[in-house]
Amino acid sequence: MDLRRMFEPKNIAVVGVSENFLNPGTVIFKKNLHEMEVNTFGVNPKGGVIDGREIYRKVSDIPVDLDLVVVAIRAEYVNPVVEECGEVGVGGVVVISGGFAEAGKEGAERQNELTRIALKYDLPVIGPNCFGIYSPPYVDTFFLPSERMVRLQPGNIAIISQSGGFMVDHFFSRFYERNLGISIAVGVGNKAVVDEAMILKYLEKDPRTKIITFYIEGFREGEGARFLEAARSCTEKKTVIVFRAGKTETAKRVVASHTGLMSTSPRLFSAALKQNGIIEARSEDEIVSFAKVFSFNLKPIERGNVAIVTISGGHGVVCSDLCAEAGLRLVELTEEEQKDLRSRLKPSAAYVATLKNPIDLTGSATDDDMETTLSFLLEKEDVDAVIILTFPYPPALSLTLGRRLSNTAVLYDKPVVAHVPWLPKYSMIVEGFEYNGVPVAHTIAEVVQMIKALYLRGQLLKAARERTLEAVAKTPSNPA
Amino acid sequence: MDLRRMFEPKNIAVVGVSENFLNPGTVIFKKNLHEMEVNTFGVNPKGGVIDGREIYRKVSDIPVDLDLVVVAIRAEYVNPVVEECGEVGVGGVVVISGGFAEAGKEGAERQNELTRIALKYDLPVIGPNCFGIYSPPYVDTFFLPSERMVRLQPGNIAIISQSGGFMVDHFFSRFYERNLGISIAVGVGNKAVVDEAMILKYLEKDPRTKIITFYIEGFREGEGARFLEAARSCTEKKTVIVFRAGKTETAKRVVASHTGLMSTSPRLFSAALKQNGIIEARSEDEIVSFAKVFSFNLKPIERGNVAIVTISGGHGVVCSDLCAEAGLRLVELTEEEQKDLRSRLKPSAAYVATLKNPIDLTGSATDDDMETTLSFLLEKEDVDAVIILTFPYPPALSLTLGRRLSNTAVLYDKPVVAHVPWLPKYSMIVEGFEYNGVPVAHTIAEVVQMIKALYLRGQLLKAARERTLEAVAKTPSNPA
Repeated sequence: MDLRRMFEPKNIAVVGVSENFLNPGTVIFKKNLHEMEVNTFGVNPKGGVIDGREIYRKVSDIPVDLDLVVVAIRAEYVNPVVEECGEVGVGGVVVISGGFAEAGKEGAERQNELTRIALKYDLPVIGPNCFGIYSPPYVDTFFLPSERMVRLQPGNIAIISQSGGFMVDHFFSRFYERNLGISIAVGVGNKAVVDEAMILKYLEKDPRTKIITFYIEGFREGEGARFLEAARSCTEKKTVIVFRAGKTETAKRVVASHTGLMSTSPRLFSAALKQNGIIEARSEDEIVSFAKVFSFNLKPIERGNVAIVTISGGHGVVCSDLCAEAGLRLVELTEEEQKDLRSRLKPSAAYVATLKNPIDLTGSATDDDMETTLSFLLEKEDVDAVIILTFPYPPALSLTLGRRLSNTAVLYDKPVVAHVPWLPKYSMIVEGFEYNGVPVAHTIAEVVQMIKALYLRGQLLKAARERTLEAVAKTPSNPA
Repeated sequence: MDLRRMFEPKNIAVVGVSENFLNPGTVIFKKNLHEMEVNTFGVNPKGGVIDGREIYRKVSDIPVDLDLVVVAIRAEYVNPVVEECGEVGVGGVVVISGGFAEAGKEGAERQNELTRIALKYDLPVIGPNCFGIYSPPYVDTFFLPSERMVRLQPGNIAIISQSGGFMVDHFFSRFYERNLGISIAVGVGNKAVVDEAMILKYLEKDPRTKIITFYIEGFREGEGARFLEAARSCTEKKTVIVFRAGKTETAKRVVASHTGLMSTSPRLFSAALKQNGIIEARSEDEIVSFAKVFSFNLKPIERGNVAIVTISGGHGVVCSDLCAEAGLRLVELTEEEQKDLRSRLKPSAAYVATLKNPIDLTGSATDDDMETTLSFLLEKEDVDAVIILTFPYPPALSLTLGRRLSNTAVLYDKPVVAHVPWLPKYSMIVEGFEYNGVPVAHTIAEVVQMIKALYLRGQLLKAARERTLEAVAKTPSNPA
């Protein structure tokens, strides 16, 4: 099935519009009509006029080729409309309506019928029980008024989610907080037809998308295998990240009543992800920090050898704990190296700094000391990445800090990430870092998660490379 | 030793002021002179005038009784000044300067001498190598310009930290983000004299303080036992929370070079905290959510039976996972109860809602549905606490939601906490909740941490009550 027409449509119809502006169909009709770059038609059996537009009585009355039809009516009326879409030959359908597999036996039968219709017409259907597609600037089928959500900037991260609510709240709000931009977002709901694997295959070739993030609750029989296969062919080119919910026994029961899916064993699932080159985010927070660090142009690391520069000993201790827990190693500076570095610092920092690693320059640090230390560390062969823990509280640090350190960082082919507290008055430092290629985290946990992500990715790419070499070595043409 | 004079001083002196406005002593002198409600004197051997104030050549030249002397000069000059303070009979001393036990053998000897002097004069000394005291509106010995930090509102949370940097960054910035107010904050540094136990004893009687939070890296011989003893006598009246850093082997080594302390075994330490009625925060985030929930007037819970109300199935699943991991139990609604609740909902939510628990009212929920469900759950005997996962994305939810739900919540003697995403445009909902007694978290993890905190506290109080009953039963006057 080809998803391109529905993801980048020119003409769409919304079935289920009315005079009631709280009605999901009406919300979707109005937001596409007024906010998106798409020709939007409304459908209601009663006809009429809304916002100056003629409302059609049925999909087949609409006098253009429809790339996408959005269905937002009561469950029992959905399937005949989808059948009509198939007959007319539309590009794809999004079924917003709930009342299918998540809602008991009758709903499950209804969903089977929906699948049957879609397959008959080779018609891509997203949903039911879903938010559908947000693909700016083309289309937005989410039934929430835009002014109640956040509007994300365009970017290179795609989101595919089994929960629309989690997507628009957690992904959208946190991405907004963390300055992340998206290429496309899809709420897949019950996945009667289009599933993660199909979307992943589409995104593999989507030039807007570099990172693909998933919120997954469970799979049906066979679906998981298809997903892993689609991922395997994609993960060397693009970064695929999964956050899995429904791990505990309690939550598994909840999943069944949410999307009608069975969750798989967390341990097996994690192993399968790893084996297929997919990065697993273990918490709500990790999915955001992982997506953020990959949206920057940083090199994955293979060894996980890290150096920490801080101006607060406590941050150094907390960060050391978190690095150890994430499997990262701190590279200890030798006595000689410490002496060398100390000789390059300004006297007031040199006098009190602790230089083993974490390098604690203390509140006496100046911009010069920070820059000197960063270069020193990046030049060391055994340092793969540097974490900067900073905040502009000490009087000698200037607002130029972010730009200075990031301009130093890009001279080396090693990732540098920074921690700066998230307060509007520090924006100049945050932007100084980020506009110049260094991602900023706002908690110590997040900054460690960023390096962990690059380490996970480095290990996955290394494993893939080794598999390829092994395969080459085993080919008959090679006598070894 | 009596700490009151130094924590609520009328007259202070700062030793180590100069014309250089980046100099720590100067920063402290100026901020107290211009910003705090305290008479501030400056000391420099050269004398002179700064900001129109006479600078004294030594502490003993100052013509008033000093409640506090802040020493911010090079380590080798510190001890003679402290000796002078002892002779003059000041109320207490804060030694900001580094170069003591954290800085090798010579520093350790210097610190021993400092301790000896303090004990000789029965002089409370905070530090060295510390931030000292922030006790609004009286005094602020932090050597960071106020405009570079955040200014917290007055509140009922005290902070005692072995790292000044972690305190002003993590505690202050996150408290500011989460709308928390503080009573007093102390950066204890190397603890040559005044340690956590002494401050805890002071805070036990401090009417401004209800919650006492600690950042701890390690203790010296005997110090831990004193701390636990002080906590034991305090924890039934006030809530004591500890965040421990330096748990991993890597971090333990870092602790030694940060404050010159030895860290203890994490497992033993955790057990000791629990036994003495102290709540342990396991992460950077938990310390903030724990402090926040206790700053509200909510009843601790003993059983940990929780109900979740959401409008997003995905939130319900993620929250179920986190509740299970936190040892909380979801109370399942019976078929009959579900039928009863469904009959009270508006038709559009009733049609699609999932009511087992999590109660997922879906995007069709109205304010009425949310309120009806909340009352229904709070009336159930086996529900101890309710988590509300909401956001104003669905068109039918109004900005009155926070006020409506919190006004319902307070009719019952059970804790209710809410999750609302942290975006300025939702402030009206957040404030509606919080002004009316319901704390708001901004991630699903945080909202679960809040209930976990109340559950930990409930269990601790129950254990204490049982110990008391046992002790009473064992007294000779009681024949049983």
